[in-house]
Amino acid sequence: MSKFMSSKYSNLVPYTPGEQPKDMKYIKLNTNESPFAPSEKVLEATLEEAKKLQLYSDPDCTELVKAFTEVYGVAKDEVIFTNGSDEILNFAFMAYCDDETPAVFPKTTYGFYSVFAELNHVPYIEIELNDDWSINIEDYFNAGGTVFLANPNAPTGIALSLDEIRAVIENNPDNMVIIDEAYVDFGAESAVKLIGEYDNLMVTQTFSKSRSMAGARLGFGVANAALIQDINTIKYSTNPYNVNRMSMAAGVGVLRDEEYTRKNCQTIIENREYTVQELKKQGFEMTDSKANFIFVKHPEYSGSKLQAELKKKGILIRHWSKPELEEYNRITIGTREQMQALIDAVGELLAER
Amino acid sequence: MSKFMSSKYSNLVPYTPGEQPKDMKYIKLNTNESPFAPSEKVLEATLEEAKKLQLYSDPDCTELVKAFTEVYGVAKDEVIFTNGSDEILNFAFMAYCDDETPAVFPKTTYGFYSVFAELNHVPYIEIELNDDWSINIEDYFNAGGTVFLANPNAPTGIALSLDEIRAVIENNPDNMVIIDEAYVDFGAESAVKLIGEYDNLMVTQTFSKSRSMAGARLGFGVANAALIQDINTIKYSTNPYNVNRMSMAAGVGVLRDEEYTRKNCQTIIENREYTVQELKKQGFEMTDSKANFIFVKHPEYSGSKLQAELKKKGILIRHWSKPELEEYNRITIGTREQMQALIDAVGELLAER
Repeated sequence: MSKFMSSKYSNLVPYTPGEQPKDMKYIKLNTNESPFAPSEKVLEATLEEAKKLQLYSDPDCTELVKAFTEVYGVAKDEVIFTNGSDEILNFAFMAYCDDETPAVFPKTTYGFYSVFAELNHVPYIEIELNDDWSINIEDYFNAGGTVFLANPNAPTGIALSLDEIRAVIENNPDNMVIIDEAYVDFGAESAVKLIGEYDNLMVTQTFSKSRSMAGARLGFGVANAALIQDINTIKYSTNPYNVNRMSMAAGVGVLRDEEYTRKNCQTIIENREYTVQELKKQGFEMTDSKANFIFVKHPEYSGSKLQAELKKKGILIRHWSKPELEEYNRITIGTREQMQALIDAVGELLAER
Repeated sequence: MSKFMSSKYSNLVPYTPGEQPKDMKYIKLNTNESPFAPSEKVLEATLEEAKKLQLYSDPDCTELVKAFTEVYGVAKDEVIFTNGSDEILNFAFMAYCDDETPAVFPKTTYGFYSVFAELNHVPYIEIELNDDWSINIEDYFNAGGTVFLANPNAPTGIALSLDEIRAVIENNPDNMVIIDEAYVDFGAESAVKLIGEYDNLMVTQTFSKSRSMAGARLGFGVANAALIQDINTIKYSTNPYNVNRMSMAAGVGVLRDEEYTRKNCQTIIENREYTVQELKKQGFEMTDSKANFIFVKHPEYSGSKLQAELKKKGILIRHWSKPELEEYNRITIGTREQMQALIDAVGELLAER
């Protein structure tokens, strides 16, 4: 930190992205990316758009919003696009939290929530999960602040039902509820269909996972028009051209190829169920994940060792050193071949004990 | 504004981007874009990268930083890339301004500075320009806050010399000086070469103007390593993957085609001088612009009328309703054909009076 940096950030500890080592070619099961290339329609749209890069992108994302409303059945003033869903989550922390309105979220969840709270100098309340890693929704009733829930939750993969989400919303009539659905397309129920019913609900999603576009940075928020207008006020005061031309075109392209997205999600679900079955045979314990990752531990093999040993074998998985997570690993679901390689490698490690 | 929006933003007035009407095809001389398509090397790099969109972009922008250091002669820890230069300017307002350290900038300058200050709830001091629209650098000596100077300034196009920039830096030893060089490639002197000499200097630039990449959203900051680390702390606490894969690749591509950039800048400079000469013949008054735009007024034709009448003729230029600017227009410099169309249209309007 330089001597010029404002002291308000002197305790800020940034988020740590998953490692992206460049020393060799790995099977990457550590950052929840899709193993599938983007849709051909993405490639076509992107190339066409790159020729017009000298012109600013459309701050209103008109074409993308149009394509989106046709697929999602919301009105055009009920959606906003951002530079990845991290950006809209940060905007939501800015818009809906302050000294009087803390952020409220599980103690174990997407690690960026506490960073956003620290960044924006808003108080936050972290609520413990149940012993089985599930969320006790009553803990979030009349929370006295803005509720942030990842559904499915990270890194557990456990999903709340739509009825549970409804209960949280209805029991916080005076506060916002933000449902972060980054992983919803792999088997959970989306709350997008509820936005017309509740004035205190915002749903965020990303094109990074189910749509194979992590590298394009495209996220969105869906909510009633007044809430979207709040986020637009922040966006137009921060970075009006936050979505670049190519990602915008890529987004239109992928929305015109929903069949490809659905097929890929189905494959991930099948590969997840296969991996769960095989790892259970090897003695692993795990949560019931509805995401494109699983959250596993082996009673006789430590999480940090498993990560280190698999890395030596060319397979990356995620591990955290936080005490409550240190027995666990998060493993992204890739292709069947990648998962078989993982299962085989794990089998070898367990046999070598 | 919804009832849930934090009251801290109740007075926030967002930045207004230049209009991008879609009702017909215009000659766009209103948002300082380049009239030239991006380099062929940009197209090649982008297409290649779009095939890998399922993978996150590199938060460290390793390849882009490498290409940059080869062209700009700085070290790899002396540069940071952002989602357009608006993002790094906002990060600088965050990092270097607070209740004790106001932002200090000219009253007439890039309109986003005051928005960033309001957004971040930091006090700011706006200093009047001289009557000829020039900056009196002594007004910024021992400014008691973080100085933001656009060089060339917007919308005047007037540039400070490197000696004047040095004087501002040296007379603010206890405060940061941010030099916003969005338009520097069209005839002003860059302060990038000074970063090794001063620990309180940060220079920001963009690929939007001289490199024909406004739609890619790629900006950067250059400063000593401690200052870049400050901005990295903010970036990694906001949006670590802020630069997408395609824009990153496009940036590498354009940096490998410096000849194309230089040639385009030279053409813009020539077209600017031609336009200045022709508009002066028609009675226009203007500042000595070193940017890819000119700042003009006609003693007998109002700024708002000129904008409205040119729009009817299919030509967009920029006008502001602020009292001090209302006589003026800002006209982006395009191709020779576009400028001739402007000159002819203006001639017709003046003849019709």
